[in-house]
Amino acid sequence: MPTIHDVAKHAGVTPTTVSRVLNNRGYISDKTRKKVYSSMEHLNYQPNEIARSLKNKQSNIIGLIVPDVSHPFFAAFASQIEYYAYENGMKVLLCNSHLDPVKEKEYIDMMRGNRVDGIIMSSHTLETEQYQNVQSPIVTFDRQIGDIPYISSDNYMGGKLATELLIKQGCRKIAHICGNLQLNLLANERSKAFLDVVNVHNVEHIVIETDTNVFHNQEYQKMIRQLLADHPDLDGVFATSDIIAAYVIKECIELGIKVPEQIKVIGYDDVSIAPWITPSLTTIRQPIEDIGKLAIKLLSQQINKEEYVIKNQLDVELIERASTL
Amino acid sequence: MPTIHDVAKHAGVTPTTVSRVLNNRGYISDKTRKKVYSSMEHLNYQPNEIARSLKNKQSNIIGLIVPDVSHPFFAAFASQIEYYAYENGMKVLLCNSHLDPVKEKEYIDMMRGNRVDGIIMSSHTLETEQYQNVQSPIVTFDRQIGDIPYISSDNYMGGKLATELLIKQGCRKIAHICGNLQLNLLANERSKAFLDVVNVHNVEHIVIETDTNVFHNQEYQKMIRQLLADHPDLDGVFATSDIIAAYVIKECIELGIKVPEQIKVIGYDDVSIAPWITPSLTTIRQPIEDIGKLAIKLLSQQINKEEYVIKNQLDVELIERASTL
Repeated sequence: MPTIHDVAKHAGVTPTTVSRVLNNRGYISDKTRKKVYSSMEHLNYQPNEIARSLKNKQSNIIGLIVPDVSHPFFAAFASQIEYYAYENGMKVLLCNSHLDPVKEKEYIDMMRGNRVDGIIMSSHTLETEQYQNVQSPIVTFDRQIGDIPYISSDNYMGGKLATELLIKQGCRKIAHICGNLQLNLLANERSKAFLDVVNVHNVEHIVIETDTNVFHNQEYQKMIRQLLADHPDLDGVFATSDIIAAYVIKECIELGIKVPEQIKVIGYDDVSIAPWITPSLTTIRQPIEDIGKLAIKLLSQQINKEEYVIKNQLDVELIERASTL
Repeated sequence: MPTIHDVAKHAGVTPTTVSRVLNNRGYISDKTRKKVYSSMEHLNYQPNEIARSLKNKQSNIIGLIVPDVSHPFFAAFASQIEYYAYENGMKVLLCNSHLDPVKEKEYIDMMRGNRVDGIIMSSHTLETEQYQNVQSPIVTFDRQIGDIPYISSDNYMGGKLATELLIKQGCRKIAHICGNLQLNLLANERSKAFLDVVNVHNVEHIVIETDTNVFHNQEYQKMIRQLLADHPDLDGVFATSDIIAAYVIKECIELGIKVPEQIKVIGYDDVSIAPWITPSLTTIRQPIEDIGKLAIKLLSQQINKEEYVIKNQLDVELIERASTL
């Protein structure tokens, strides 16, 4: 177990300086601060005095890491997190990671520096090692990283419900548009369920992986247009988000393809836009309010050294609207 | 000018305790902290030592107050603010005020306590007095409060462009759906422009004010359904947000009213949903990226004691799509 002296030696500073960095007292140059943090990280140093007096030193600020809050799902997620954090006397520091691991790391460093009490992480970054060595309160959404408690909705059930509905409604050639399956997201279970169901029913199918960072509109449009051109006999689409489903419907309308008569479309999330789309969008609802509430609960339990559950899976719900009639 | 001793006397604590609260050092109970803040506020105390050493004591955290980040416009706004804040080495504390003045006040108190360096305020709260006595960095969006620097897009021009387009396209009876005009929002200029233009052109018109806190879907639907029932000869709608315009289009479709053939619809903001709606939505674009960048610039200028401009008005742009053809 490394001590404050080991850190000081490694960083080439005095133990007093390390202590100052830890307690955020007195003037410390950014350069020194970084050096100390870097040594702490290298040695995986856990400052005991901070752990012991955590309750008194709480900042009552938590970090929330999302890919981009301008995405409707994460906007709703952030809104719920802030709501329940506030109810528990905590404030929320917002980080749009834009899949930038360096940016995420700064928030982890803030946690080490005791400037945030914990982190709720809902990012799609590839690098997750940096989270694993942090013995501080973290909750992830849709990511399973080591022993860190996580929340997900029942993605397999969501994928199953969506695919079975399309088949029940008569679809015989279904495209599934999903995220990058290389990323170890729990949302990948939706795609697994899709494949299981189409294979059981022996239904022709196509799987299209979108790029990691495709929150950009033109990319979606191009990809969907290509899909519709390549497969004129397509009669069903299961998209992994309502946003992608909205683009599918829009492209269909522009190409004169009737939804739901020619192609039935189902989305995922049930974000606020789903009912505005014409035809209104059938989707799988994630219980975003329960997710927000539970994330705060899991974080509080860790901060207060209470017991908590590691695996937290919430139910999804099929919301049938006009796009699959 | 009140001193630390006046504050201590008023709060019934020692000057050392006031100093501890100010510097966020040592253990202070929540009760004492609140008492000290309350006395500081009552006496309008400005701690000199903090003002003098602001640069060293910066938290590099700014507060962002929005009505609700789950609204697409404010989601995009928050995303831009966070982007430019990060570029300037600052992190963003997110507050959904939900029009709760008590909640907003806590952020102002954090600023007094030096826990945030400044606030970007884009709320619709009725009470604005509490902002006026704070001699700390604040930037408002679409609110003009005393001498606090503010940003708005050219709301009058936006309202003018929208109304003139509807008239040019042949509308002879136009409804304008706007926010609560009792609130002293700069967005009210859109409604002023609407009235000026319809009066110049002698066009029949209706103005509908939505309630302060109507971000709720059912309310919009009911209100629009009533409007369409009361005025079967309506042929144009200028809504003060894309969300409201989306609801107008949705209700029209459900009632068998053709957009744009029977009723032309124009929204405001150009949030991400505008192009997904069918027919795609004509709107007035607010330059959200420039707004976010400028807000951070104005805040940084204040934090760094540089000169800044109080009135900042940015240009809007008419984006013509299918809903007004």
